[in-house]
Amino acid sequence: ELLLHLEDIHHADIAEIITELSLDEATYLVKLLDSEKTSEALMELEEGVRERILDKLSAREIADELVEMDTDDAADIMNELSPELQKQVISEIQDEQHAEDIVELLRYPEDSAGGLMAKELVRVKENWSVTGCMTEMRAQAENVTRVHSIYVVDHKNHLKGRLSLKDLLTASSDANIRDIYIPNVDYVNVHTEGEEVARIMQKYDLEAIPVIDEMRRLVGRITIDDIVDFIKEEAERDYQMAAGISEGVEADDNIFKQTRARLPWLLIGMFGGLGAAGIISGFQDTMSVFPKLLLFVPLIQATAGNVGVQSSAIVVQGLANGSLKGNIIAKRLVKEVSLALVNGLCIALIVFGISHFGFGTSFRESISVGIALIAVILLAAMIGTIIPIILDKNKIDPAVATGPFITTSNDVFGILTYFLIAKAILGF
Amino acid sequence: ELLLHLEDIHHADIAEIITELSLDEATYLVKLLDSEKTSEALMELEEGVRERILDKLSAREIADELVEMDTDDAADIMNELSPELQKQVISEIQDEQHAEDIVELLRYPEDSAGGLMAKELVRVKENWSVTGCMTEMRAQAENVTRVHSIYVVDHKNHLKGRLSLKDLLTASSDANIRDIYIPNVDYVNVHTEGEEVARIMQKYDLEAIPVIDEMRRLVGRITIDDIVDFIKEEAERDYQMAAGISEGVEADDNIFKQTRARLPWLLIGMFGGLGAAGIISGFQDTMSVFPKLLLFVPLIQATAGNVGVQSSAIVVQGLANGSLKGNIIAKRLVKEVSLALVNGLCIALIVFGISHFGFGTSFRESISVGIALIAVILLAAMIGTIIPIILDKNKIDPAVATGPFITTSNDVFGILTYFLIAKAILGF
Ligand SMILES: [Mg+2]
Ligand SMILES: [Mg+2]
Ligand SMILES: [Mg+2]
Ligand SMILES: [Mg+2]
Ligand SMILES: [Mg+2]
Ligand SMILES: [Mg+2]
Ligand SMILES: [Mg+2]
Ligand SMILES: [Mg+2]
Ligand SMILES: [Mg+2]
Ligand SMILES: [Mg+2]
Ligand SMILES: [Mg+2]
Ligand SMILES: [Mg+2]
Ligand SMILES: [Mg+2]
Repeated sequence: ELLLHLEDIHHADIAEIITELSLDEATYLVKLLDSEKTSEALMELEEGVRERILDKLSAREIADELVEMDTDDAADIMNELSPELQKQVISEIQDEQHAEDIVELLRYPEDSAGGLMAKELVRVKENWSVTGCMTEMRAQAENVTRVHSIYVVDHKNHLKGRLSLKDLLTASSDANIRDIYIPNVDYVNVHTEGEEVARIMQKYDLEAIPVIDEMRRLVGRITIDDIVDFIKEEAERDYQMAAGISEGVEADDNIFKQTRARLPWLLIGMFGGLGAAGIISGFQDTMSVFPKLLLFVPLIQATAGNVGVQSSAIVVQGLANGSLKGNIIAKRLVKEVSLALVNGLCIALIVFGISHFGFGTSFRESISVGIALIAVILLAAMIGTIIPIILDKNKIDPAVATGPFITTSNDVFGILTYFLIAKAILGF
Repeated sequence: ELLLHLEDIHHADIAEIITELSLDEATYLVKLLDSEKTSEALMELEEGVRERILDKLSAREIADELVEMDTDDAADIMNELSPELQKQVISEIQDEQHAEDIVELLRYPEDSAGGLMAKELVRVKENWSVTGCMTEMRAQAENVTRVHSIYVVDHKNHLKGRLSLKDLLTASSDANIRDIYIPNVDYVNVHTEGEEVARIMQKYDLEAIPVIDEMRRLVGRITIDDIVDFIKEEAERDYQMAAGISEGVEADDNIFKQTRARLPWLLIGMFGGLGAAGIISGFQDTMSVFPKLLLFVPLIQATAGNVGVQSSAIVVQGLANGSLKGNIIAKRLVKEVSLALVNGLCIALIVFGISHFGFGTSFRESISVGIALIAVILLAAMIGTIIPIILDKNKIDPAVATGPFITTSNDVFGILTYFLIAKAILGF
């Protein structure tokens, strides 16, 4: 009776129920329910939960689930299994074409177009008639959940164009596909990076995009639902990266995984802090003459960090969404430096006033603090702008360059600049 | 000849070309080219660029562009115009239904389902035959770029279900819509928030979702391409917010707009820094006895900031993607506190060693620094966890709680904790 009820529920909701269950209950449910349903629910689970359930299933049982999945999802699941288990599972899949397709998809890196595509698509030949095409299309569409577009190929399977279902419905039945298809079709190559696929699909508002191989043969199709997931995951990863968390951690991952993702960034910050300690102790003689200068170290550090993070976030984002490209260093620097001057002047004036009248620092000390602030803000803006651009030029993801990385370098350079300027002005 | 060439280019590419042109050239191009093309290109432009071009067009010319747009896009453009200009433009639109639809859409807030939906959709009555439906569908589909689903309504326009084009193609022509439609259709209400719409469409892998009004009448449809844009914009806004930039600034926005988006956060950091200065000056007597303690202020501050940002990022993200819900404070705190203890112990040990042997601080001073570090890390993790949860409970977007907001409070509390612990241990 529970069973009947669950059969009616959407697989995404079954996935949510599974997450709430104990491992044994969850495994029981997956074995019990029709694989048509559980296979899709498995796809929606968090990787950790899925891993634990798959661990409890035999190769045969995993194969039963994979058979019901689209090839892209099946390949993703396979990627989570050990190489031996992969072989066993493949040999348990009766449908040879499906097994072959999955094996083919396993060849591509996860974040490439090849790793994102599915083999399921509707394909017609350019020399077919509309009527023949309708028949063939109905047969093929059995295995394709959402048709979106029908792809037109020549006798060598080279992609020639596409046809929408709507076009097919409105075409006269004695027409030839050759005469009605749309030859201008967007496509990507199996090696195109996922981010580029997402960019193209977003730009041209596509629900699906065909994928071709090195020989221009149509080999697969990427659908927008998978790109939506990809965009979301990318955004979450970038957000975490900016906060000093690597690896794409989830809120309920275990302490060990969380530590591995977080501690390295804290250590970077720690060494920066120790560097700052070294700098301050290098200026110790001065500090005994002007002890009040030390009061403003936290202010200098906080400002340097905040400005650096702001500047780098703008650059990292611009590089990621493609709005910054080409030779941008000079243009960006001019913009950030002007902005830093405006912000720096405001902050320096306020701090000058508060330190002189509030903390009783001498006029010259207050001037030093104010001028140092402007210099530190300028420097922080420049570091924040240049580092991500350099990383990007060297094919390193500039997303690492916000958060701890930038704040740490700005802490150190900021404090050094502060003491050097104070020294120059106060002349000790 | 240039004209002929441009007519062949995709509107998203024309938008890129327009961005590269001077304002006069861009305006000339928009007026010259067929509005069927330029209207879509206008939609792809950045708001700032579009605004400047629209400024150069008459109400009549704007109306010409709006007529070619889907109603959702037309309403978005209208939202950027002044109320008087809106009225003029509407009165210039000949197609009364289109004008009426646009006016209706203007009623909804931009980020609600009503603000995201378009009026264009294919609608059939449940009592129609498949043949009648095909004819009607062909007529309606003229105005609907992508059909996705056909929505089934009763005689009161209440949403009953949906039908895929594929189902229609495979149905026998003498069947009745009533017998073949899918009654289980996902839908949202005009008042549903955009983030919720995005969550539902992502969860159920939808390409389009129907929108109903308070009376359950079918009033519009949201398509996935607009949700992809929405998700991207949301992610960019959250990313910027975490970096201390409000308002969704673009890299090439002017200095004034950038300052307005950035300076307030820098001022928060500044007041935090001045607060820290106040705290240090409050412990000045102590500092003259143990001057070396001051060396580690930057380290304490940097660590407090980094830990706080990490903890808050995890919570903010979990709240945004729905993986954290219900009464989570206790569970989250236990997790973050354990994690903080692990990370804190590692860092404290290293710093103890380096400060004692590297900087020559006394054993008791080094112990104070180490213990203070652990305490500060614990505190920072707690602040970083609790603040976003409290904001969320009070319906404030928790995204504001990463970046400057968290680092500033952690700077202040961290430094205060440091001195209090040092004072307790060193007993001054
Ligand atoms: Mg099963
Ligand atoms: Mg894959
Ligand atoms: Mg788009
Ligand atoms: Mg669009
Ligand atoms: Mg898929
Ligand atoms: Mg990225
Ligand atoms: Mg025009
Ligand atoms: Mg809108
Ligand atoms: Mg999905
Ligand atoms: Mg999916
Ligand atoms: Mg739209
Ligand atoms: Mg948000
Ligand atoms: Mg900081």
